[in-house]
Amino acid sequence: MDVFDRLKQAADQDWQSYVDHRFVRELGAGTLPQAAFRAYLVQDYLFLIQFSRAWALAAYKSRTIPEIRAAQAGLSGILDETELHVRLCGRWGLTPEQLHSVPEHQATVAYTRFVLDCGAAGDLLDLHVALAPCVIGYAEIGKALTPNGIDQIPADHPYREWIGEYAGDAFQQLAVGSRRLLDNLAERSMTERRFAELAALFGKASRLEADFWQMGLDAAA
Amino acid sequence: MDVFDRLKQAADQDWQSYVDHRFVRELGAGTLPQAAFRAYLVQDYLFLIQFSRAWALAAYKSRTIPEIRAAQAGLSGILDETELHVRLCGRWGLTPEQLHSVPEHQATVAYTRFVLDCGAAGDLLDLHVALAPCVIGYAEIGKALTPNGIDQIPADHPYREWIGEYAGDAFQQLAVGSRRLLDNLAERSMTERRFAELAALFGKASRLEADFWQMGLDAAA
Amino acid sequence: MDVFDRLKQAADQDWQSYVDHRFVRELGAGTLPQAAFRAYLVQDYLFLIQFSRAWALAAYKSRTIPEIRAAQAGLSGILDETELHVRLCGRWGLTPEQLHSVPEHQATVAYTRFVLDCGAAGDLLDLHVALAPCVIGYAEIGKALTPNGIDQIPADHPYREWIGEYAGDAFQQLAVGSRRLLDNLAERSMTERRFAELAALFGKASRLEADFWQMGLDAAA
Amino acid sequence: MDVFDRLKQAADQDWQSYVDHRFVRELGAGTLPQAAFRAYLVQDYLFLIQFSRAWALAAYKSRTIPEIRAAQAGLSGILDETELHVRLCGRWGLTPEQLHSVPEHQATVAYTRFVLDCGAAGDLLDLHVALAPCVIGYAEIGKALTPNGIDQIPADHPYREWIGEYAGDAFQQLAVGSRRLLDNLAERSMTERRFAELAALFGKASRLEADFWQMGLDAAA
Repeated sequence: MDVFDRLKQAADQDWQSYVDHRFVRELGAGTLPQAAFRAYLVQDYLFLIQFSRAWALAAYKSRTIPEIRAAQAGLSGILDETELHVRLCGRWGLTPEQLHSVPEHQATVAYTRFVLDCGAAGDLLDLHVALAPCVIGYAEIGKALTPNGIDQIPADHPYREWIGEYAGDAFQQLAVGSRRLLDNLAERSMTERRFAELAALFGKASRLEADFWQMGLDAAA
Repeated sequence: MDVFDRLKQAADQDWQSYVDHRFVRELGAGTLPQAAFRAYLVQDYLFLIQFSRAWALAAYKSRTIPEIRAAQAGLSGILDETELHVRLCGRWGLTPEQLHSVPEHQATVAYTRFVLDCGAAGDLLDLHVALAPCVIGYAEIGKALTPNGIDQIPADHPYREWIGEYAGDAFQQLAVGSRRLLDNLAERSMTERRFAELAALFGKASRLEADFWQMGLDAAA
Repeated sequence: MDVFDRLKQAADQDWQSYVDHRFVRELGAGTLPQAAFRAYLVQDYLFLIQFSRAWALAAYKSRTIPEIRAAQAGLSGILDETELHVRLCGRWGLTPEQLHSVPEHQATVAYTRFVLDCGAAGDLLDLHVALAPCVIGYAEIGKALTPNGIDQIPADHPYREWIGEYAGDAFQQLAVGSRRLLDNLAERSMTERRFAELAALFGKASRLEADFWQMGLDAAA
Repeated sequence: MDVFDRLKQAADQDWQSYVDHRFVRELGAGTLPQAAFRAYLVQDYLFLIQFSRAWALAAYKSRTIPEIRAAQAGLSGILDETELHVRLCGRWGLTPEQLHSVPEHQATVAYTRFVLDCGAAGDLLDLHVALAPCVIGYAEIGKALTPNGIDQIPADHPYREWIGEYAGDAFQQLAVGSRRLLDNLAERSMTERRFAELAALFGKASRLEADFWQMGLDAAA
């Protein structure tokens, strides 16, 4: 078992509340109300801005050029992802102006600033454990929603593009890299005593992710 | 008008949503359900832990001994306040063990980590503007709830002690000091262009405080 | 006068001690001992590692996508510069292994960690003022050493490549951008009271840069 | 062997260059030129300002009230020590005004900002390992200079008060506490792989401390 699987097992209930949230199930089934998805998508854009700051923080906290370069690639990747987001939002009828005028929801503030504070107050391992539900979790969700492969998503599935992105090879490989990074950081600075703290942190981050889905559902209620 | 009054005026609607929240009115009238107050009080204890870290951050970001000493006094004051909180919670039937086993609510995470991130990413002025709704806001609420003075709170008012603390001279003086500090920091690094950003930050912090009251009400719903 | 010219004027003596240091004059004249240049070059490589962390810090401290993107470009540029450095060092007979095994000199630690601390404790303006002697200063030195243009550097000048890099258009444009950024940040958060503090900070950073040249000379003494 | 003894052993040469520096030996023998001591003392005062920021950083990076309280006590202790320093400097003919007008020496900038950056970029263990040569090292020096006890320092020894402070019970107990803290933090987040990194960090901090003594000697040369 790698560190990520250990964290998942230790925080099983919180993890399930996140990856098996009603929002996820309805998104997979294509029955999620558009209003819920749109509310989510806009907040996820605001989320990515803070998320890119988290990767910049990882670069700042690095010691060697390879570490800095890896974090810089992560930062660069997120910045590219925001452009895709702007296009995806456009298809749902949201202009960039609308995206930037929407205030951050409490759920967005809570998870993003929690991650940033874990990173600022702790070390790179704290930061990457706090990020893990997002990076690795989205990859697991993407895979779980495509048991027969991406090609089997019906052409008229309303969330086909979203599911395809996270189930796709590129994102899956990103998640594999993140798991290896966790193992590597843990070899350096994780004892069993610390594992318990990291599992609590991971569980909390998972709950904050679940709250993020809930925000989408509430917007359409 | 000092900087605080300008911020309040610029973010009037957000500010009113906070200081005139139903939680506050019912607390003042003594009609707030005990369950709402208890839920609030426990989260406020967890809030203070992060709040003390914010004062430590202010000390770290200071440049001169008098600045460091002032922030250290703030930190020390918060640590003392947590002890009062433990006692107050005890009177409401909450043991220290219970206090520490309660998970942080999303509303607690959102406001506290937002403040800490404002301070980590910005300068001392950003940090103290983000803190202002709490420090100065509680003083305003305490005063507003005691129009005829603390002595006129009925002896059997269930929230007498809480109101008395924030309406009391010590806390009022603390708020006066915080207003002066804002003016002082603004003289150093606030232009009119920046004022608009600070007003937006202040409005956001006020909304997060309003959400904190709402969490208390929701717990008793 | 833009902010940079004002800073230079206010800290004139410290600034001159840096841009007109004997190391610079001998480098320009081609009379600088190779041992001095090599000692400098190795430490400058170690310097760039910390310098890239400073740009990552700028990205972390940014609030908007354009700001983050600009800092990310700066970070990316520095990482590319380290590769050029490795090649340049190679030409002077230094292997990458040698580069990484050299301990940081006190002068390297002093300037780099001073910049990083200015940025961590202050805001983006503090950070960029601390960086200015390096980014904008090297451009001024490059220009001053090529009064008749880059083409007029003798083909056999031992430091032709180094001078050409900093006198070249690409680096000159980078410095123009840095000056504009200072002006922009100052419009947001610089009052006249703060200018005096920034000038002191700028003077100190300039002295630490002068010490960095001195380290090169001392190595060949 | 506790963590501190392991660090000392792993970085033996750097450690000896610090604790057995000529400055220390001459200070112990009472033969250190006054000019060297005064130059050191003034810089040590400037050092303590940054050192108090390091303790504030430790409080900010803490997670629990006991941790925050311990760091706050450290911060408070340093602030008190600066007052003693002002008095001690006064006896050597230095007014508080003189103390504040002296620019920080490169050696002061290097060690203090190195410690602060270790703490900002790393975790509490990195921070406390970087601080260890100062806190625990001064206690070892104090003890080594008083092999027969404090009472045996001749009454006319010019540096009697300084030696007495660091050889005294209060400071010795502080160092004992720091050693325990290192052990405690290491149990949480130190693997053997990380020990090698920490030993390198400890060695570097020790060399920067040695440079600090050298600065005193150079001032009197």
